[in-house]
Amino acid sequence: MLQNLTDVRGIKAWGAHMGIKSKRRDLALIVSEKPAVAAAVFTQNLVCAEPIKLSRKHIKDGIIQAIVINSGNANACTGKKGWEGAVAMAETTAKELGIPVEHVLVASTGLIGEPFPTEKVLKGITESATKLSDRQVAGSLAANAILTTDTFAKEGFDSFEIDGVTINMAGIAKGSGMIHPNMATMLGFIVSDIAISRELLDEALREAVNKTFNMITVDGDTSTNDMVSIMCNGMAENEEITTKDENYHKFLDHLIKLCKHLAMMIVSDGEGSTKLVEYRVEGAKTEEGARQIVRTISDSNLVKTAIFGTDPNWGRIFAAAGRAGVQFDPDKVDLYFGSGRAVQILDKGQPTDHSREEVKKEMKTSTITVTLVLNEGDAEAVGWGSDLSYEYVRINAEYTT
Amino acid sequence: MLQNLTDVRGIKAWGAHMGIKSKRRDLALIVSEKPAVAAAVFTQNLVCAEPIKLSRKHIKDGIIQAIVINSGNANACTGKKGWEGAVAMAETTAKELGIPVEHVLVASTGLIGEPFPTEKVLKGITESATKLSDRQVAGSLAANAILTTDTFAKEGFDSFEIDGVTINMAGIAKGSGMIHPNMATMLGFIVSDIAISRELLDEALREAVNKTFNMITVDGDTSTNDMVSIMCNGMAENEEITTKDENYHKFLDHLIKLCKHLAMMIVSDGEGSTKLVEYRVEGAKTEEGARQIVRTISDSNLVKTAIFGTDPNWGRIFAAAGRAGVQFDPDKVDLYFGSGRAVQILDKGQPTDHSREEVKKEMKTSTITVTLVLNEGDAEAVGWGSDLSYEYVRINAEYTT
Repeated sequence: MLQNLTDVRGIKAWGAHMGIKSKRRDLALIVSEKPAVAAAVFTQNLVCAEPIKLSRKHIKDGIIQAIVINSGNANACTGKKGWEGAVAMAETTAKELGIPVEHVLVASTGLIGEPFPTEKVLKGITESATKLSDRQVAGSLAANAILTTDTFAKEGFDSFEIDGVTINMAGIAKGSGMIHPNMATMLGFIVSDIAISRELLDEALREAVNKTFNMITVDGDTSTNDMVSIMCNGMAENEEITTKDENYHKFLDHLIKLCKHLAMMIVSDGEGSTKLVEYRVEGAKTEEGARQIVRTISDSNLVKTAIFGTDPNWGRIFAAAGRAGVQFDPDKVDLYFGSGRAVQILDKGQPTDHSREEVKKEMKTSTITVTLVLNEGDAEAVGWGSDLSYEYVRINAEYTT
Repeated sequence: MLQNLTDVRGIKAWGAHMGIKSKRRDLALIVSEKPAVAAAVFTQNLVCAEPIKLSRKHIKDGIIQAIVINSGNANACTGKKGWEGAVAMAETTAKELGIPVEHVLVASTGLIGEPFPTEKVLKGITESATKLSDRQVAGSLAANAILTTDTFAKEGFDSFEIDGVTINMAGIAKGSGMIHPNMATMLGFIVSDIAISRELLDEALREAVNKTFNMITVDGDTSTNDMVSIMCNGMAENEEITTKDENYHKFLDHLIKLCKHLAMMIVSDGEGSTKLVEYRVEGAKTEEGARQIVRTISDSNLVKTAIFGTDPNWGRIFAAAGRAGVQFDPDKVDLYFGSGRAVQILDKGQPTDHSREEVKKEMKTSTITVTLVLNEGDAEAVGWGSDLSYEYVRINAEYTT
């Protein structure tokens, strides 16, 4: 079995079936033996779920010891009763574990606007608190309990050495894979036994999320419930990282690697997705500009349907770049299809003598690489997207009915 | 027969078949007997077609006498030869009509990145210049010659009185209807015999386009070739409108009405579209904010697939509003489905006791109204969108192949 959450020192987990969903587990609990330094990023959507509002408060002091997550009901647009339900989730978790309520993060995913089944959820929490375990299967149960329309659980583990000490890091995630949107909610929960300062942990998480979770396209829709958090309990007993030294960058690199692994699993999931596309924008003036172009291209329905249909209509990619709101000179742009820049399509903004058949060949693989070189500077970004298929329409036209 | 372009004083037109498209007409010419005051708005895409670059130059002095449009080839990403082709289109038109080359606007629509067939196009211009006519059929031929994957021609006509003088106004358009994107190119050409100053005409066109063409969603993709222009030749001999008086506002109202008529025809066109949705955002702080929310909702794949599937998943609409980048308080929002606010879904951010069946009933009609009231101010906006169907995917996956 692959290593997971419970292979991180001091981490226990459980996933229970409390009955919001008819058969699958729907309540996850992740607990650290000791209070952990923590950071989290939340949806930017003004319309946000009750657990997001509560978790934003609880993360403020940067200390978290438990995370409780339910699936099947988003607890969004649920009003006063929904808020009370989220608070009750934190309170019950705190009481069962004997920790302060402010040390509990709460997350939900599922249908919006449905009454929140507080009683069922609290029962699931009590059950999970009793069954909490550091066996590997417990981590997998938690990973399964946070899924909605996902077709498989998303887990990851990594370890590395800092000053001779082994650091463990693990994470679970759920997401729509562009095609199973439950409002496309994306959740990610990462734990590590590294010792690091709150400030640096916060900065590292934001950078890692920007380069990974934020670079996969999820319909362009930002959920009411999106959340990625990290808890680091210091139980590896390395010397605490407090400056941006070599150790910090090693940690950051491994965090990005783990987040990318989870993000790729999200993109790959789902009946509607037939192809994974890696979009690279290189030679940009700024990294943010490069990211913006990647996001605009990978989010374009015209690009996604062309990818699905193996239609070498590369003009759609170039045109999507042009409307990204980033300044560049179209007459400097090179465009390539295929890994290792296999086929050049545009040379300084002019179409090359490539054949349509060459491009179609590159598009027929299940993993496609598109590289746009702006020749304006040294910044670059990479992102991942799916295609847009008939299945996407079917699944989303019939989600609640 | 409906009145059209050629019912405006001094306007002649023609549509020829020059052979870029296999059967349908593909070259349109619209000419004013006298030089006309003119205005135009163009795509904001950095990657723009050669005719756009040329027309931007020619519109600068605000005088235009002829518009030449080809369909079947976008003349975009075509490099130096494409530019020369666009210049040749203007030069040949000018020579045939005996007018200055700067008084010619040029537009193209069709596939991107294909070599531009200059010879064919010039032959079509020469033929059209010979056949130019003020018969009604000539206006319809022009309206047909600018189509790509559109399934019907889009024409409109309006007349009104200013100080006892009858003013005529007519227009033609083409567009993707969200579902037939030829890079989703939208073109609109309006003519009138009103006398109005250049400055006010420019301002009126921008306002009308913002409220109509810019409020229909075309995949969120902005084409390399988008363009809407207006020529006013003053042949109605009304006293020239030079201030924002009653006459200006009368003209503006009729211009908005005509543009809305053409925009609605664009949204309604296409196999992939099964429903027309009107999105109203009311009680906003600013009109621009209201527009931004309308655009974000109507552009959401999750909303569009739910509309297609008659799935009363209204949380997707509320959540799309929340990520529009416009500040508002979700706890003040009212949401309604149906015309005349038939079914209330949210009351001050809280779900009402509506039944899913009531909502489904409102969603089953072919024209759906969604009203979001922010209760923040007095500004409002209205926009129109389509649904996202299996046909959309099929058409766009197979566009060039």
